[in-house]
Amino acid sequence: MSSFVRSLAIVADPPSLADNSGDLDRLRRVVRETLADGLPVDFPLTHVGALCRRFRKAGFQGTALVNDLGDRWVVADFMGEAPDLLAGVALDLGTTHLEATLIDMGNGRVLARADRVNDQIEYGVDILSRIHFATAARRLEKNLDPDFVDPGLVTLQRVVRDCINALLADLAAAAGLEPENVRALAVSGNTTMVHFFLGLDPYHLCREPYIPMINQPGIVTAKELGLSLHPAAPIWIMPSIGSYFGGDLISGILASGLSEGDETRMLIDVGTNAEVVVGNREWLIACAGAAGPALEGGVARMGMRAGPGAIDRVNIHPVSLEFTYTTIANAPAVGICGSGLIDLVAALYLSRVIDIQGRLRDPALEKNGERAAFMAARIVENEGQRAFVIVPATEAAGDEPILLEQLDLDALMRSKAAMYAILTTLLGQVGLEFDDLHEICVAGAFGGHIDPLRAVTLGMLPDLDLSVYRAIGNSSLHGAELALCDQASRQACSRIVAQITYVELNVNQEFMIRFSGSRFIPHTDPSLFPSVPFYNDNS
Amino acid sequence: MSSFVRSLAIVADPPSLADNSGDLDRLRRVVRETLADGLPVDFPLTHVGALCRRFRKAGFQGTALVNDLGDRWVVADFMGEAPDLLAGVALDLGTTHLEATLIDMGNGRVLARADRVNDQIEYGVDILSRIHFATAARRLEKNLDPDFVDPGLVTLQRVVRDCINALLADLAAAAGLEPENVRALAVSGNTTMVHFFLGLDPYHLCREPYIPMINQPGIVTAKELGLSLHPAAPIWIMPSIGSYFGGDLISGILASGLSEGDETRMLIDVGTNAEVVVGNREWLIACAGAAGPALEGGVARMGMRAGPGAIDRVNIHPVSLEFTYTTIANAPAVGICGSGLIDLVAALYLSRVIDIQGRLRDPALEKNGERAAFMAARIVENEGQRAFVIVPATEAAGDEPILLEQLDLDALMRSKAAMYAILTTLLGQVGLEFDDLHEICVAGAFGGHIDPLRAVTLGMLPDLDLSVYRAIGNSSLHGAELALCDQASRQACSRIVAQITYVELNVNQEFMIRFSGSRFIPHTDPSLFPSVPFYNDNS
Repeated sequence: MSSFVRSLAIVADPPSLADNSGDLDRLRRVVRETLADGLPVDFPLTHVGALCRRFRKAGFQGTALVNDLGDRWVVADFMGEAPDLLAGVALDLGTTHLEATLIDMGNGRVLARADRVNDQIEYGVDILSRIHFATAARRLEKNLDPDFVDPGLVTLQRVVRDCINALLADLAAAAGLEPENVRALAVSGNTTMVHFFLGLDPYHLCREPYIPMINQPGIVTAKELGLSLHPAAPIWIMPSIGSYFGGDLISGILASGLSEGDETRMLIDVGTNAEVVVGNREWLIACAGAAGPALEGGVARMGMRAGPGAIDRVNIHPVSLEFTYTTIANAPAVGICGSGLIDLVAALYLSRVIDIQGRLRDPALEKNGERAAFMAARIVENEGQRAFVIVPATEAAGDEPILLEQLDLDALMRSKAAMYAILTTLLGQVGLEFDDLHEICVAGAFGGHIDPLRAVTLGMLPDLDLSVYRAIGNSSLHGAELALCDQASRQACSRIVAQITYVELNVNQEFMIRFSGSRFIPHTDPSLFPSVPFYNDNS
Repeated sequence: MSSFVRSLAIVADPPSLADNSGDLDRLRRVVRETLADGLPVDFPLTHVGALCRRFRKAGFQGTALVNDLGDRWVVADFMGEAPDLLAGVALDLGTTHLEATLIDMGNGRVLARADRVNDQIEYGVDILSRIHFATAARRLEKNLDPDFVDPGLVTLQRVVRDCINALLADLAAAAGLEPENVRALAVSGNTTMVHFFLGLDPYHLCREPYIPMINQPGIVTAKELGLSLHPAAPIWIMPSIGSYFGGDLISGILASGLSEGDETRMLIDVGTNAEVVVGNREWLIACAGAAGPALEGGVARMGMRAGPGAIDRVNIHPVSLEFTYTTIANAPAVGICGSGLIDLVAALYLSRVIDIQGRLRDPALEKNGERAAFMAARIVENEGQRAFVIVPATEAAGDEPILLEQLDLDALMRSKAAMYAILTTLLGQVGLEFDDLHEICVAGAFGGHIDPLRAVTLGMLPDLDLSVYRAIGNSSLHGAELALCDQASRQACSRIVAQITYVELNVNQEFMIRFSGSRFIPHTDPSLFPSVPFYNDNS
């Protein structure tokens, strides 16, 4: 493993009349000799005076910290004694949340974790509204000077920078460091977030043919972006493939090991979009689609991200119809997160409270007495629509009951249908069946909590042996951690980008047909889900 | 010739759903294909938004301007139509003066010239006093934080930056351009000036063993240094060899072609120091010494740099003793420049007004009547010292006569002795005689005006056939012009640096002996100067 920043033991001859090389020329010479790979060795000019004085103060021997830029090295710092720790930060730059870990780059160990809401939410809850905010001046004025920078873009860049700096401060404090002692940063984010982060115009990201300014930004420095880690710290930005296929997913592919295996596997990452990749070391095919909102939390009225008070598990006893749930941190219930929602809707289907189209049935028409009583107790009318009471007001953290409204159910049905349609369409592109998959990695906050059995019940995931499913957590973050610690992983990103075939679903007729077929529980064709009972109640 | 910035005709396919490469990834791909040398192609991240929009505005075809960094390319700009002109600036960053040319990098043609006084003079007339100014805080406080930047250094960097920006404005105005249309800068300066330019601590430059922070700073951008040319413009800084052997001389070696020839030649550059190089394509040996001040102008009380009103030619008729002179631009005489001074002192010796030790003789002791009358008319007593009236007050531009004082004469004698001692000591190091030299290139403002015959008379330059001497003007500036227009020249600089053997005269016994022997006109050993009459008057 060769981390993004390496520490090199350096012993240089002190200057003399016989050898009057400049201090930094001397340092460069010894660094080149030590690395012995023939690559150029540069200095960050804006920081070079202090570097030089540290080298001199240490008596021309000690430890040089060198940034590995792949095709060259940059000497970032010098110190008399080898540092106890080379700390770097891996960052998942999400649209709604930022999540980061402080890593010992020497051994890959996680020293601290932190997360924050993305404060850009103030300027637009979703990516599209933020793109509009960042291009407001440009949209008003058609023929702008190419040098014009939209004030909205400047604002969004500043806000995300401040957010990251706050996160860096949290992480450093947790590990007892100064932020300036963080020596590198690896960032994984969707293409739009990366544009905001770099202050790049996102105008064309959301307009056909959806072209980013850049997919492979490469490496910049902390100083260039005004981040509070060490000014010469290199910042690795995960490459992306297109507007809707970002570095976060490249990071996920890296973390899942999909592109390294002999066996064909699938990666499903559900965030705001569902992003799916299938492949092995020979080939990779990918697509993305809007399957996520209902699952991620935050869209359903009582939906929320997995956090204290979120209902994450729900069960309805098949015989007694006893309704039980758990919340994260055992806190009073605040709302319901994606895994809870899937559990709930699967349970509602199995207990026949909803029908195969995902509609809450009419308690008055229910013939089974016990179920009728259950439904009468739990189903309420709310603004002319039925709603299911998950938690009554008396038990909930707030003053109101936690409800699953029919609108939320409809959204979930669309999401689950989209998800299954995406998976089948993508496999169809390469002539494979689900049985050909060695493993299905489920990533994201969603992936960490979801019970595959329940997702299969809904017809969201295919009806396979459950051992096929592997939850890999926040793979966007985990890929960034790998990139931070290993040059081979950074190189692998370029290979992944070069290897992937991207399927555009928005223009795919087959996807639309499959989507329609998936809008039942578990599916219009129940033979695809032999393990799931099929209740075609007419109610 | 491959200039520092090249313009490349680019035709890229426009983006489509089938090819959704990022705009800059697309540009990079076509630039790489066009250059076809396998080197990395980067972007200056801080300027990349405008670049991207220009590429898009031009419909993905037009002209890319790419900076040649030797081991990689940087795409600096894009425009729909090929530019009429790729303008660069070559700068001689002198201690007292800045001189620059605006160059068409396509063909090397000089489009404009400008020069300015180095405003740093306000903070110290010579290099040493400026180093003191730039390190004042550091010298007071012994154990400074390596990150501390001396406010004096900040001031000197700002002043030289402002000076260069003013020069760029002058040049651009003369050529009818905006400074932002200047695409590259090549800078040649002594090591201390380069340190000031880059904001690097000069503390050790003047302390044994005289170690620069850096000798090979490489390439930076205009934006990094706050210069007013195009922000992505690359700035080539001539490498130096040590504190007292700067990039200005490397530039001179480049301009003279010394390091390319089969024949052995000598380069003499007289600025504040005399810097001398001998060699050919196989080897180079160099030294520097304090021989210049009396010759450069500005040290003798009436001395000045070659400019309007400077006396540049002086003659005393051998028979009639008629005294004649010319001034630059035929303006009323203001002072005397180096070439005028050498002419004058040689003429004073040949007309026996001064003796072989360079002392003004006593008019009262002169037996030749005509000469006695001439001397009586021209030699005055001034503060207990004799002085020679070059121009009486009635003829001079100011209200005072222009005098050559005995102190000035003494300084010139030391300078001319040092010069000859430097030349002979250096040749002695490689076991050569003057006759072995194919050519002697004389550089600097001094070299452009000096009459070698007069310098030989003084014993400053060796008594050789005058065809051996070639005046090459401001070779520091000319070398920068070459570096601007030709990658091979930039590479040659590294070879020159690697090839040179530097002889330290300050610790050289032989030099001191030769210096003493040279403190007569033409020399203690007149047989070395057979063409020069030897008048050993005792007066």
